[in-house]
Amino acid sequence: MSTLPSLEILIEQFRRLPSVGRRSAERMAYAILDYSKEEANFFANAIIEAKENIKRCKVCHNFSEDEICPVCSDESRDHSVICVVEDARDIISLEKVKDYLGVYHVIGGTISPMKGVSPEDLNIKSLMYRLSNDDISEIIIATNPTVEGETTALYISRLVKPLGIKVTRLAYGMPVGGELDHADEVTIGRAIEGRKEL
Amino acid sequence: MSTLPSLEILIEQFRRLPSVGRRSAERMAYAILDYSKEEANFFANAIIEAKENIKRCKVCHNFSEDEICPVCSDESRDHSVICVVEDARDIISLEKVKDYLGVYHVIGGTISPMKGVSPEDLNIKSLMYRLSNDDISEIIIATNPTVEGETTALYISRLVKPLGIKVTRLAYGMPVGGELDHADEVTIGRAIEGRKEL
Repeated sequence: MSTLPSLEILIEQFRRLPSVGRRSAERMAYAILDYSKEEANFFANAIIEAKENIKRCKVCHNFSEDEICPVCSDESRDHSVICVVEDARDIISLEKVKDYLGVYHVIGGTISPMKGVSPEDLNIKSLMYRLSNDDISEIIIATNPTVEGETTALYISRLVKPLGIKVTRLAYGMPVGGELDHADEVTIGRAIEGRKEL
Repeated sequence: MSTLPSLEILIEQFRRLPSVGRRSAERMAYAILDYSKEEANFFANAIIEAKENIKRCKVCHNFSEDEICPVCSDESRDHSVICVVEDARDIISLEKVKDYLGVYHVIGGTISPMKGVSPEDLNIKSLMYRLSNDDISEIIIATNPTVEGETTALYISRLVKPLGIKVTRLAYGMPVGGELDHADEVTIGRAIEGRKEL
């Protein structure tokens, strides 16, 4: 029914979301029509509230509802180790593992001359500020293993090493449970490069 | 980050939508955090507006922004033929085909003693009202070919036939482009039952 502008607008809004096609967007919009007025208002409010309440941590640029994020304000964590990630979402993946007990720094992207992203556009200055003011023993660079991610990792390591701080990079290789014939060449290449003696 | 209640609430809201898993809901919620405040407000508003503006047509119970839906108010359509569907969404599928030029009646479900849905819970009374007041020549029953859909089709046809109105049912059989070895037994059964001489 192209004669239902409010429905069309809602469908378009759902379509904008990641990996939602026309069909799914339609189904989502119809689901909203089946909601009670209260349920629809609650959903609308959840969008506005999330956007309003969730800010960036003043220290590490992680998502936070307070000035300082829960990780940075956790005294039990090791504040001398900083894991550098591209995006705040990466922190959630890393936190799920529960193996890492240091803190983070979200640089907010990667250096990419193609996309016109230079180091000044990233949160690198605030990282250097932390390194010069706090007692940091190690920086773990966890940018993604893409060309831009590698460039950014190299850029940061060149800035940090002269300060006498240890700089490490996450290990890349075969994913656990992965099979060789399903892995891409770059991953296999990395796995060979990073091989360990048994 | 379980310590971000507003984000958790938003993720849960996305998860309630049809065929959205935890992972997709998370990605959608993060997408919202990347929206500008204006974009987030626009989305929230689209939900509220759709829910507020979209009512049910007073004649056929189709979705409508006006008292009478665009199909019912279209004078060029054949108002003597009514296609009975379970859900207003079915109208959209049928309208896409552009082959049908009659009008509709949304009964809003199917008779199901299992789910406690009796004929009184469906828009059957308003259908009978239309039949007795308007000049109707044919009723096409397009409820789904499920047990409940069939029961409902039979129930309606028993009510309508005594009025001397022609009652037909959509043809069910092999989907065009479908292959025999991919079709389910019920569909094949229907295709055999409804076979035509060449």
